Amino acid sequence: MIKFENLFKAKIDYMISNIRIVLVNTSHPGNIGATARAMKCMGFKELFLVAPKYFPSVDATARAAGADDILAHAKVCDLFHEAVSDCHLVVATSARVRSLSLPLLTPKELVGEISNAQNNSKIAIVFGRENNGLTNEELQLCNCQVQIPTSPDFSSLNIAAAVQVIVYELFNADLVHNQSDRQSVTNSPVLATASDIADFYRRLEQTLVVMNFLQPNNPKRLMQRIHRMFSRIKLEKIELGILQGILTKIVELLR
Amino acid sequence: MIKFENLFKAKIDYMISNIRIVLVNTSHPGNIGATARAMKCMGFKELFLVAPKYFPSVDATARAAGADDILAHAKVCDLFHEAVSDCHLVVATSARVRSLSLPLLTPKELVGEISNAQNNSKIAIVFGRENNGLTNEELQLCNCQVQIPTSPDFSSLNIAAAVQVIVYELFNADLVHNQSDRQSVTNSPVLATASDIADFYRRLEQTLVVMNFLQPNNPKRLMQRIHRMFSRIKLEKIELGILQGILTKIVELLR
Repeated sequence: MIKFENLFKAKIDYMISNIRIVLVNTSHPGNIGATARAMKCMGFKELFLVAPKYFPSVDATARAAGADDILAHAKVCDLFHEAVSDCHLVVATSARVRSLSLPLLTPKELVGEISNAQNNSKIAIVFGRENNGLTNEELQLCNCQVQIPTSPDFSSLNIAAAVQVIVYELFNADLVHNQSDRQSVTNSPVLATASDIADFYRRLEQTLVVMNFLQPNNPKRLMQRIHRMFSRIKLEKIELGILQGILTKIVELLR
Repeated sequence: MIKFENLFKAKIDYMISNIRIVLVNTSHPGNIGATARAMKCMGFKELFLVAPKYFPSVDATARAAGADDILAHAKVCDLFHEAVSDCHLVVATSARVRSLSLPLLTPKELVGEISNAQNNSKIAIVFGRENNGLTNEELQLCNCQVQIPTSPDFSSLNIAAAVQVIVYELFNADLVHNQSDRQSVTNSPVLATASDIADFYRRLEQTLVVMNFLQPNNPKRLMQRIHRMFSRIKLEKIELGILQGILTKIVELLR
């Protein structure tokens, strides 16, 4: 059976190949490199740079740390509209909300917005200047605005950190619901059966009695507590073997 | 009517004040500054630095960009255990998954995990070295591991970017659909601290050697397996007391 979440994830994965990240008038080349690295980690490829102050730059390459292919293929434009003119959805990101604001989304709502877009849509997610964000003229070319919620006391998110949050949300679009799939990918160990564990409890109880740690006529809630403790971990077969081995050794030594 | 999500968000907001970020042996001071900035944007305050290569540093202060109060109050420790010994939940973050791995969570699952912790729990979220992550010895002091999913082609997430993703998820906890909501309402018991548990492991190891179950010159991976097993339980204080009692009894009987 095809799960709904898988379809949703497949759609977003497909959309990612149509999403470009646009940095406008970036001052610090280190931020361009860190943006490339953030993008590549989350499977994004297309970077547009509108009139960067310094580019190319050794600082950008250093901070890209292996994502230099994204820098090498970055498209540099003089004007903002050149970077977004062929796009069907242009998303501004901004810390401040202007008086004449666009529809405002959270990063998680953006994921929904993008999943609703047509398959062949081209999408731009735009990050403004480090100090001044986007101009009103630039905002007028955008369809909506994403705001990453921050502390009321300090909202100065670094631009590459903001890119990281957005690409992370998009790449992990499926993860909210989808735990079982991921676990099945990791190598899952063989678990002990319920009857193996019941056998362990019986032996443990006998041993604790022999050790005089558990008084059969005044057991309190000791075995109950022990059950509760071990039932929380889903014992693996090999782990149960270790515990059984320790019990065997104790019984041997007490003889 | 009070909405359930509001209660959940209030709980997480409260928990954030008890969560420390621990950076282990960080090479690049810029990453320390960027971490402070990421933290402050999401309302986090407590930063622990275990043997940083360079600190304080102008690079750290420059990248903190206004979050220098977090740097000024950062606690610098020589050894990892000093940074986590009073914590009830120690969360490793790691790109790689070791063969004897801890329970593995996504960042969103971590939010659920933390919402289930007791109100006064102290929590550490630990980020390892830029190149090598955490050592096996350090991982053994951790209860679980968070992995930020990345592209299969490129998983080299910058450490401050990883911090940004985690603190963002926690700060925006109300936006996550959380399945463990129900559990967070129930009364959670007092957990044992990391240093209590480390003490238990030491006594257990000594006892297993005295019992001749563990050969010190051929330990194989016995203690590692035992650590892994018990770290999954998240031992309660009262349970640790039972286990310590059993050890005391064994030692008495062997005399």
